[in-house]
Amino acid sequence: MTNKIGFIGLGRMGRPMASNLRKKGFELAVHDIDRQAVDALVALGARAGASIADIARECRIVITMLPTHLEVEAVALGSDGIFANAAPGTILMDMSTIDPLATDRLSAEAGKHGTTMVDAPVGRLAEHADRGESLFMVGASETDFATVKPLLEAMGTAIYHCGPVGTGGRTKLVNNYIAITLCQVNGEALALSQRFGLDITKTLQVLYGTSASNGQLRMNFPNKVLAGDTSPGFTIDLAHKDLSLVVAAAHAARVPMPVAAAVHESFSQARAAEFGKIDFSGIADVVCEIARIEKPRVPEGWKPA
Amino acid sequence: MTNKIGFIGLGRMGRPMASNLRKKGFELAVHDIDRQAVDALVALGARAGASIADIARECRIVITMLPTHLEVEAVALGSDGIFANAAPGTILMDMSTIDPLATDRLSAEAGKHGTTMVDAPVGRLAEHADRGESLFMVGASETDFATVKPLLEAMGTAIYHCGPVGTGGRTKLVNNYIAITLCQVNGEALALSQRFGLDITKTLQVLYGTSASNGQLRMNFPNKVLAGDTSPGFTIDLAHKDLSLVVAAAHAARVPMPVAAAVHESFSQARAAEFGKIDFSGIADVVCEIARIEKPRVPEGWKPA
Amino acid sequence: MTNKIGFIGLGRMGRPMASNLRKKGFELAVHDIDRQAVDALVALGARAGASIADIARECRIVITMLPTHLEVEAVALGSDGIFANAAPGTILMDMSTIDPLATDRLSAEAGKHGTTMVDAPVGRLAEHADRGESLFMVGASETDFATVKPLLEAMGTAIYHCGPVGTGGRTKLVNNYIAITLCQVNGEALALSQRFGLDITKTLQVLYGTSASNGQLRMNFPNKVLAGDTSPGFTIDLAHKDLSLVVAAAHAARVPMPVAAAVHESFSQARAAEFGKIDFSGIADVVCEIARIEKPRVPEGWKPA
Amino acid sequence: MTNKIGFIGLGRMGRPMASNLRKKGFELAVHDIDRQAVDALVALGARAGASIADIARECRIVITMLPTHLEVEAVALGSDGIFANAAPGTILMDMSTIDPLATDRLSAEAGKHGTTMVDAPVGRLAEHADRGESLFMVGASETDFATVKPLLEAMGTAIYHCGPVGTGGRTKLVNNYIAITLCQVNGEALALSQRFGLDITKTLQVLYGTSASNGQLRMNFPNKVLAGDTSPGFTIDLAHKDLSLVVAAAHAARVPMPVAAAVHESFSQARAAEFGKIDFSGIADVVCEIARIEKPRVPEGWKPA
Repeated sequence: MTNKIGFIGLGRMGRPMASNLRKKGFELAVHDIDRQAVDALVALGARAGASIADIARECRIVITMLPTHLEVEAVALGSDGIFANAAPGTILMDMSTIDPLATDRLSAEAGKHGTTMVDAPVGRLAEHADRGESLFMVGASETDFATVKPLLEAMGTAIYHCGPVGTGGRTKLVNNYIAITLCQVNGEALALSQRFGLDITKTLQVLYGTSASNGQLRMNFPNKVLAGDTSPGFTIDLAHKDLSLVVAAAHAARVPMPVAAAVHESFSQARAAEFGKIDFSGIADVVCEIARIEKPRVPEGWKPA
Repeated sequence: MTNKIGFIGLGRMGRPMASNLRKKGFELAVHDIDRQAVDALVALGARAGASIADIARECRIVITMLPTHLEVEAVALGSDGIFANAAPGTILMDMSTIDPLATDRLSAEAGKHGTTMVDAPVGRLAEHADRGESLFMVGASETDFATVKPLLEAMGTAIYHCGPVGTGGRTKLVNNYIAITLCQVNGEALALSQRFGLDITKTLQVLYGTSASNGQLRMNFPNKVLAGDTSPGFTIDLAHKDLSLVVAAAHAARVPMPVAAAVHESFSQARAAEFGKIDFSGIADVVCEIARIEKPRVPEGWKPA
Repeated sequence: MTNKIGFIGLGRMGRPMASNLRKKGFELAVHDIDRQAVDALVALGARAGASIADIARECRIVITMLPTHLEVEAVALGSDGIFANAAPGTILMDMSTIDPLATDRLSAEAGKHGTTMVDAPVGRLAEHADRGESLFMVGASETDFATVKPLLEAMGTAIYHCGPVGTGGRTKLVNNYIAITLCQVNGEALALSQRFGLDITKTLQVLYGTSASNGQLRMNFPNKVLAGDTSPGFTIDLAHKDLSLVVAAAHAARVPMPVAAAVHESFSQARAAEFGKIDFSGIADVVCEIARIEKPRVPEGWKPA
Repeated sequence: MTNKIGFIGLGRMGRPMASNLRKKGFELAVHDIDRQAVDALVALGARAGASIADIARECRIVITMLPTHLEVEAVALGSDGIFANAAPGTILMDMSTIDPLATDRLSAEAGKHGTTMVDAPVGRLAEHADRGESLFMVGASETDFATVKPLLEAMGTAIYHCGPVGTGGRTKLVNNYIAITLCQVNGEALALSQRFGLDITKTLQVLYGTSASNGQLRMNFPNKVLAGDTSPGFTIDLAHKDLSLVVAAAHAARVPMPVAAAVHESFSQARAAEFGKIDFSGIADVVCEIARIEKPRVPEGWKPA
């Protein structure tokens, strides 16, 4: 076994990540179906792996950065794959964003070969990867996390150990759900602002000064619903009323707002289920209660760092 | 005409607002259907108005803080109402959150009596009002804004002049749409985190470090879509793919996510309409284009203050 | 008091309805803001009412067919309105489609003048009205229903007495919700069929032979969920699985299906709330249970006529 | 090659289907992981296949009736699978409901072995299968359809040849989307009816007499939008207005209606995109236009059989 790192998948994200590893001095064996991508890394001093099996045999850590779970399974499984050819103790660190159930299956398979999985998807954009400023959400055992940490530090600036293997990808899904949804919410809000004839810079200045920035999750939630306090600051009933005004005004102004309507019905259901008098952050509890999910709570006294 | 201020509506918000005006030395004539609420203000030195008409006759500025547009219309219109009894030049400053079309109608009616309207709804919670720390979104002419500003400064700490009458309430609707929707989004995200078995404090720490806080609206939007730049950092196609993973994982974990599904379909429509290759902040443009709304743009070189 | 019928509102629906009354021999006093519409009825032998009050004074039954509750309130209320000028015992039969809460308020007001309300909105299209083939959903006391029935029979072919005043409009809302939603559902389904490259006539032939026609409501529901039987023919879990296939296939084919997604999440919630094993018609019970609504049940042994 | 039929998958649907084949005299070789299910068929005179390969070798037609595409792939592919062991000309008729892209992949694979695929999912319930009254949607070449038709006639009463392989499953998805969505729509409508306090049997009688039964698809669509005629009988604008009344009344009555809200926004978007004046069946065109899908049209003069 050597200190060489395998890196499979040199696309728009994988290539700068591998380059940063190489630039920080890691020995690399790389692979991609795009020969040019491989050549670019070879020019930086990496070795082109002859095959997946070859890379598995000579590296203690193999990184995959691939489009979907199908490609990850294709390189990990089977007689030519990573698990079948790696020495015991080898870590497969998958940095792709894939179905977390596939990660679970891969991890179980890894265990049969004495190898382990780490899932460490990336939380920022390609240009951050270019500058070695990525954010990583890591699911790994404590030991594996310690082993891969220097690699992650060579590629990024924010590294979160979320729990055992599988938690990295799941945290990324929670995160990206919020981030992408915010885009849509902002989009609908700006469309409404436009149709209302508002001056966009004035609207933005107001939004920057209120909880319309998602400071709620940092500022209100930990002290309210996540601490088990749903006493009303602003009730679900009042939130429902405001949404009624929003949707009616949007219809009068001919602005379609599918997400506003979906949220409205969620609050409508909360009202119907007799949660109208609790604080509107308590909608988190309502969602969980209806779906028989344990309510989210932070430890007593916990504060954001 | 005097310098007395009329204040009609002494509920959970109106009462501390009126109290703060009184404490800062404004002469007040107050009215509410709840006699106790009136008495509390009288104890602070306010006068109990004999009737709406009486208040209208003796005050240059009359503030209303009422539940819906029906109550505002009831006090403003008709032979016993504010407009019919106020001296020309009187300002009705409605601080309720009401249908903006009702504000437009009231403003037109005010004009027939030589009076004017200001709409100045409140953007924070009742406990902020208690401490005189409210935020106000004000729709008013420049002259009226200058006249009411000292009152607003007595009741709050953040005062935004959004444009002419009608823009205050409209800005509030845009703002509250986002703020309330964020609650629902956070609720679905936390339910997913719970069902995934994630450690909530670790999930929160990650979310605090990414664009899942709505910093997007401050940090990305003004430089990207709002400046007309939809070149891809993270494409709509990739956002759609991530949402597919989110929704599939949520279903596997039995977490209902109605808002995620609505957002997913919005991105699905954007893809189908051939916007898949632009940046995901460009969803704001897509929403506007499909609905024939002029795309939102900030002036060249504009930066958040 | 005479046998004359008042008819206020001679638009696209009102005009043929009034014409049919006149052709069947009813004496009419008519009113509309459009003079031409009035003239057309006068040419058929109707009298042009001098005013609303005038019509109220001379007719035992006054019909309104107006755009929204605002217009109905404008002609019914106030000192010049129907109630203030009608003889006790007069019936105001509103055939507009309006907010049922407005109907309730109008009915209460009618009672103060010794008059009564009937709400009888129309359930088919303008061309049916032309041919005297409308469908009416009637909310009225037994006595009032008997009084207005001959008029309804002159204008339509299907007359349903739904219960006391207010039930006509409410039944229409339930009905139109389904009818309009079916259009959207059919639209999404046909879009999917198109993108799948299916032969539309073959798809239609299949749909005509299955429960995709809403025969469910006639054939399955009364024997299953509405009789309290939710034992599984086809479970909510299987329905959820099929919807997963639908939405995934639609995404693969780039077909946005917002309603499919909303339905999917409703079934997702039903699964999470542990209703996965009951029959899929039982979703009606689930919706009611979550919203604390009494479950809908037909009397034992009830069969569609 | 023999006339024996292979049947793999003897669950709640497969078992009665295989039984009916056997009762009508077909020779069967069967397989299931549940030994009892196999024994039940053996008792009817079927042979228990030694293995998938064994069945493939001795049958000209092999039927699969399995839970998901994973199980179908497991029996069809690989060196022990159907394709590798079947004689050229063998037909694999998959009657499961699976991802149609999997069917496409399986069909391509079949071709490499000189075999062919038919997809023929089932469109009615298990109790219909018990009685040999199933409905089948069949994707098959003309030749293959002729070959499998006698089998289908032994198991069902309604057999639709939808087009080449892959069209059976796709038609089923279109069909089940509508059928399942109708359940949800009926559920929301009945919840609304309940909260409105309507007599359910009276509501049902009205619904049975109107287009709230999905007769629209049979009666209006072929003459209107599907014939390219979107001249208004009932406009999208009016449909939007009625949905506004529905949703507002539902909120006043505390009935959550997520599907109504989603439909409302779809009509809202159609209005914003300037389709407000066309017939409401034209929503099918709007959905297609926004998503760049060719509009669905039946041949000139086409009538439902």
